[in-house]
Amino acid sequence: MEKLLLGVLLLTVISGGLTHSDMRGKAFIFPQESNTAYVSLIPAVKKPLRNFTLCLKTFTDLTRPYSLFSYSTPSQPNELLLFVNKIGEYTLYIGDVGVTFNAPQIRYAPIHVCASWESASGIAEFWVNGNPVGRKGLRKGYSIGRESKIILGQEQDSFGGRFDAKQSLVGEVWDVSLWDHVLPLKEMCASYFSGNLLNWKSLNYGDYGYVVIKPSVWA
Amino acid sequence: MEKLLLGVLLLTVISGGLTHSDMRGKAFIFPQESNTAYVSLIPAVKKPLRNFTLCLKTFTDLTRPYSLFSYSTPSQPNELLLFVNKIGEYTLYIGDVGVTFNAPQIRYAPIHVCASWESASGIAEFWVNGNPVGRKGLRKGYSIGRESKIILGQEQDSFGGRFDAKQSLVGEVWDVSLWDHVLPLKEMCASYFSGNLLNWKSLNYGDYGYVVIKPSVWA
Amino acid sequence: MEKLLLGVLLLTVISGGLTHSDMRGKAFIFPQESNTAYVSLIPAVKKPLRNFTLCLKTFTDLTRPYSLFSYSTPSQPNELLLFVNKIGEYTLYIGDVGVTFNAPQIRYAPIHVCASWESASGIAEFWVNGNPVGRKGLRKGYSIGRESKIILGQEQDSFGGRFDAKQSLVGEVWDVSLWDHVLPLKEMCASYFSGNLLNWKSLNYGDYGYVVIKPSVWA
Amino acid sequence: MEKLLLGVLLLTVISGGLTHSDMRGKAFIFPQESNTAYVSLIPAVKKPLRNFTLCLKTFTDLTRPYSLFSYSTPSQPNELLLFVNKIGEYTLYIGDVGVTFNAPQIRYAPIHVCASWESASGIAEFWVNGNPVGRKGLRKGYSIGRESKIILGQEQDSFGGRFDAKQSLVGEVWDVSLWDHVLPLKEMCASYFSGNLLNWKSLNYGDYGYVVIKPSVWA
Amino acid sequence: MEKLLLGVLLLTVISGGLTHSDMRGKAFIFPQESNTAYVSLIPAVKKPLRNFTLCLKTFTDLTRPYSLFSYSTPSQPNELLLFVNKIGEYTLYIGDVGVTFNAPQIRYAPIHVCASWESASGIAEFWVNGNPVGRKGLRKGYSIGRESKIILGQEQDSFGGRFDAKQSLVGEVWDVSLWDHVLPLKEMCASYFSGNLLNWKSLNYGDYGYVVIKPSVWA
Repeated sequence: MEKLLLGVLLLTVISGGLTHSDMRGKAFIFPQESNTAYVSLIPAVKKPLRNFTLCLKTFTDLTRPYSLFSYSTPSQPNELLLFVNKIGEYTLYIGDVGVTFNAPQIRYAPIHVCASWESASGIAEFWVNGNPVGRKGLRKGYSIGRESKIILGQEQDSFGGRFDAKQSLVGEVWDVSLWDHVLPLKEMCASYFSGNLLNWKSLNYGDYGYVVIKPSVWA
Repeated sequence: MEKLLLGVLLLTVISGGLTHSDMRGKAFIFPQESNTAYVSLIPAVKKPLRNFTLCLKTFTDLTRPYSLFSYSTPSQPNELLLFVNKIGEYTLYIGDVGVTFNAPQIRYAPIHVCASWESASGIAEFWVNGNPVGRKGLRKGYSIGRESKIILGQEQDSFGGRFDAKQSLVGEVWDVSLWDHVLPLKEMCASYFSGNLLNWKSLNYGDYGYVVIKPSVWA
Repeated sequence: MEKLLLGVLLLTVISGGLTHSDMRGKAFIFPQESNTAYVSLIPAVKKPLRNFTLCLKTFTDLTRPYSLFSYSTPSQPNELLLFVNKIGEYTLYIGDVGVTFNAPQIRYAPIHVCASWESASGIAEFWVNGNPVGRKGLRKGYSIGRESKIILGQEQDSFGGRFDAKQSLVGEVWDVSLWDHVLPLKEMCASYFSGNLLNWKSLNYGDYGYVVIKPSVWA
Repeated sequence: MEKLLLGVLLLTVISGGLTHSDMRGKAFIFPQESNTAYVSLIPAVKKPLRNFTLCLKTFTDLTRPYSLFSYSTPSQPNELLLFVNKIGEYTLYIGDVGVTFNAPQIRYAPIHVCASWESASGIAEFWVNGNPVGRKGLRKGYSIGRESKIILGQEQDSFGGRFDAKQSLVGEVWDVSLWDHVLPLKEMCASYFSGNLLNWKSLNYGDYGYVVIKPSVWA
Repeated sequence: MEKLLLGVLLLTVISGGLTHSDMRGKAFIFPQESNTAYVSLIPAVKKPLRNFTLCLKTFTDLTRPYSLFSYSTPSQPNELLLFVNKIGEYTLYIGDVGVTFNAPQIRYAPIHVCASWESASGIAEFWVNGNPVGRKGLRKGYSIGRESKIILGQEQDSFGGRFDAKQSLVGEVWDVSLWDHVLPLKEMCASYFSGNLLNWKSLNYGDYGYVVIKPSVWA
C-alpha cells in the first residue's frame, strides 16, 4: 500500500513540476512581501482529518498579521489556518472558527510552534518553544475536509488563491510536519519532524514566485 | 464512621450521576467562555468551617475578572469565594466580605494558589507559587455555613446558579484540595493535594456543560 | 542595676496589662486598616538618645504612605519617625526634621530596614536588605527626648495618640530592635536583633485593637 | 600576480599619501560630528561584486541615523551602503535599493555586524553579535560596480563626497573586512577579519580630517 | 626635590589649616544640599596638564545636575570639570568646552568613574564601573592651566567660589586620584588610586562647611 502510494506521488512529481526532497537542515525563505510567492505542500495521504498535530519553526521580524500555515478546501478557505495577529498572539482556525492563544512576545529569534486538535473533545492545544500556552475548545465533532491546498507564505482567501500581500510571510519557515493524530507534545523533542501527512525529511512541494531554499541559520 | 460515609457517597454517585475518581495528573479544562460549563465538587464531610486551607493550580490567559473557587450556601452566594480581579490581584471573600491580595503578575505559566483562614483571629493567608503574599484579617469569629455548593468554572450569584459568562474561567484547574484546618503552608510541598474535605486523589464531582478532563500538560 | 530595672518592668507588666515575651520567629500582624490597632513598645531603659540604630523587618502591599516606627515625646510627636512615603521612598524624622532616602522598589517580598543616626555628626545612615542606600545629615547636636511612646502600626500626631488610618500599617512587622549607639551595619547579620533598648528576644509591649501575633512566614 | 599587485599598491601609498598597516587591535575613532572626517579604504582588488560579505565592529552612543559603511560608484552613491536608522534598525542598500533588518537595541556596548549578499538569489543575510537577525531579498541578478570609493565615517551622496554631518559616525570602527563571496557566518569566529578585498591585518587606507587611530578598548 | 616639596606642603598644612591624611577606606560625605560645604584638594605638584587621568567613586541619589570634580584656574572656572547632567549622562569640560558621554543609568549603588584626556589627539576617554563608554575629541592641543583650585562637592563659577547649591553634590566621594598622564584604563583595577597629582593614600585637603569623613560603607 505504501509503495503504491509512493508510485502515485512520483508520477505527480514528474507530471506537475513538483519536487520531492529531504529538507532536513533547510528552510524556505520568503525574501520579500508579495502576493505571488508561496510554497504548496502535498500531503502523503489525502484523508479527512478528525485529529491533527502541526509543528513548524519560523523566523520573521514582521509586526503586522501574517499566515503561518494555510490549509483550504474547495468549500472553506480557512479550513485549517494558523494565523499570527501580532507578536505572541496566534489564532487557530478550524472550519472557519477561530480560537486565540497568547504567548510570550519573542523577537529577534526563531519560534517553534505546535498546534494540535481533537474532534471528539474539540480541544486545541498550543505550544510555543516547547511550553504549553493553553488548551481551548472549538469545532467539537467537526471533520476537516479531505480535498486540500496547503500553502506556506500566503493566506488563501479562496481554494489555492486570492492571496493578500499584507498577510504574506516575509521570513523563513522550516521543520514543517503534520500528523493525522494528536501527539503527546510533552515528550516531543525539537527534532521531531516526521509527520505522517507532511514529513520534512521527505517533502513533496512546489515553490512559486520569489522563494529561496537555503540551509537554516538557526540551530 | 469513614466507611459509613463512603457508603452514603457511593449511593449519591449512583443516584445522581456523580463521578468518583482519582484525578492525579489530570485537569478540568473549561475550553470556552460560557455560563453553562462548570464542575461541582462534593466535600467528603458536610460541616460548618471555622478554619480552612484551600489550594489549587490553574492556567488561563484571561485578563478579565473570573472565579477560581466558588462555595455558596443557601443564604450567601459568596460564602467562600476566591476571585481574580485582574492578573496578580486576588480577592478572598468569607461570608460576602472580601480582602484583596496582590501578587506578581505571572503570564503564560500555571499558578499555584493557596488560601487559608482562621475564624479565631480572622487571619487569611495567601500564597502564590510557594511564596506568601500577605496575611490580612476578615470575618473574625465567623463560621462558614455547612450547606454548600462548591463550583469550579463559574461564580455563583445564587445557591448553585445564576452564573455570569463574563466571570467564568476559560482555562484549566487541577490539584484542588480543601482542608478543615489551617495548614502550615511553609512546609507544604507542591504535590500536597489530599485535603480532608476535597481530595484530588479521591474526588467526588459532577461536570456540566462543555468541560473536558485531560492529563495535565504542566508539571 | 539591670536586675532592679527588670523588677520595675515586671511591676509595670503586672499593673498595666503589658506582655513580656521572646518574640523570635513571631510577627505582629496589622490585619486591617484602622486608627485603633497598634503595638506599644517599652524600652529597657529610658534615656535621651544622642545616637541610635533601629532595625526592623516588614511586609505590606500598601502603596500609600504609612508609618513604620513612631517614637514621640510629650513635646514632639515626630521625635523619631520612620515613614514610608511610597514604595522605596523612606523619610527619617529626628526632632520633626526629615531626611529622605531612596531605595529599590521592592514588591511582594519582605523588606529589612536599618536606620542609624549620630548626633555629633548629624549623619543618618539607611540600609535596605543589607545594602546601604545613603548617608545624609540632619539635626547635628540634637538629643532625642527621654520620655517616649514607641508605637508600631500607627503614626502619632500627638504623644501616644491622634492616629490617622490613612497612615496606618496594614501588614506585618517583626525583628524590631533599637540600640543607643551606632552599629557597624556592614557587619550586621540578618538575625542580629538584640537591641539594648528594644530587644526582640525579650520584648515588653502592649497590643491594642485588632493586632494578631503569629509565627513569621518569611525566613 | 599577488606580488605584482602589492607593488602597485606600494606605489599608490607612496604617491598618494595612503597608509598600509596591520590594524589588528586598533580602531578608527571619529571624535566629533563633522562632514570632513572620514577614512577611505582601498580594496586589494578592483572587481564587480556579485557576492560579498562585510563585517565590522563599531561603538557609538548616537541615537540619530548614521552610515557604517559607504561604497559608492561614479553612477550610484548608494551602491553598497550599510546605514543605521536608529538603535537596532539597519538598512542595507544594494544599487540604491534598501532592505531593513531589526536587531535587539544594544546600548553602551560595541556591536559586531556582518552582512552578506548573493546576486543569484538576491538574499541578503544580517548578523548582529554572532546571531542571525534575518534574511531578505533584494537586487536579484544585480552586479555591484567595480569602480568604487569606500568610506567610513561619512555617507556619500556623490562619488567620494557630498557628506552630511548629520549622517556622520561619531564613535569608533574596527575589524572591518570585505570578501567577494558569501561566508558561512555560522562558523565565523569574532576574530575572523581577513577579507580578501578589505583585510584589517593588511589595510590600505587614507584618513582625512579629525580621525584618530588608537588601540581598541573593547575586547 | 620630592622631600623639598613635602616640606613646603607640611608648612602649608600647618599655616593654612589643611590636613594631610591616608584616606584609604574613608569617604567625604556631603550630608545636605548647600553652597557652603566643599573639600579643596591640593595637588602634589603644580604644573600645566597636557594629559590627565581622573578616577573617583561616588554615591548619590540625586536626579538633578551636580558637579563631581571641579578644577578651576584664575581665568577659567570650567578648566577641567566633570559634571553629571542627569543619571548616566556625564559632561567632561576642558577649557570650558564640553563633551558628553552616555552610560547605563545606575541607581542605588556606588559608581566608579574614570576620565582621561590627551592634548595631542584631543581624545577624552570615559569609563564607568570598569567599562569604556566612549572616546570623543575636544580641545586638541590645549594645555590645562597650572594655577588651580580643585573642589569636590561644589561647582566653581569663579576661581574657588561662586557655588550654586543646585549643582552641589549631596552624597559621597572617595578614592579620588589624578595623574598627569593617560593611564591604560583597561588594566586598571578598582583599587588603583595612587595618582601622582592627587593620591588618596596621601591626600592634602581642606574641608569647609558641613562635610563629614567616615569609613566607606561600600566595598
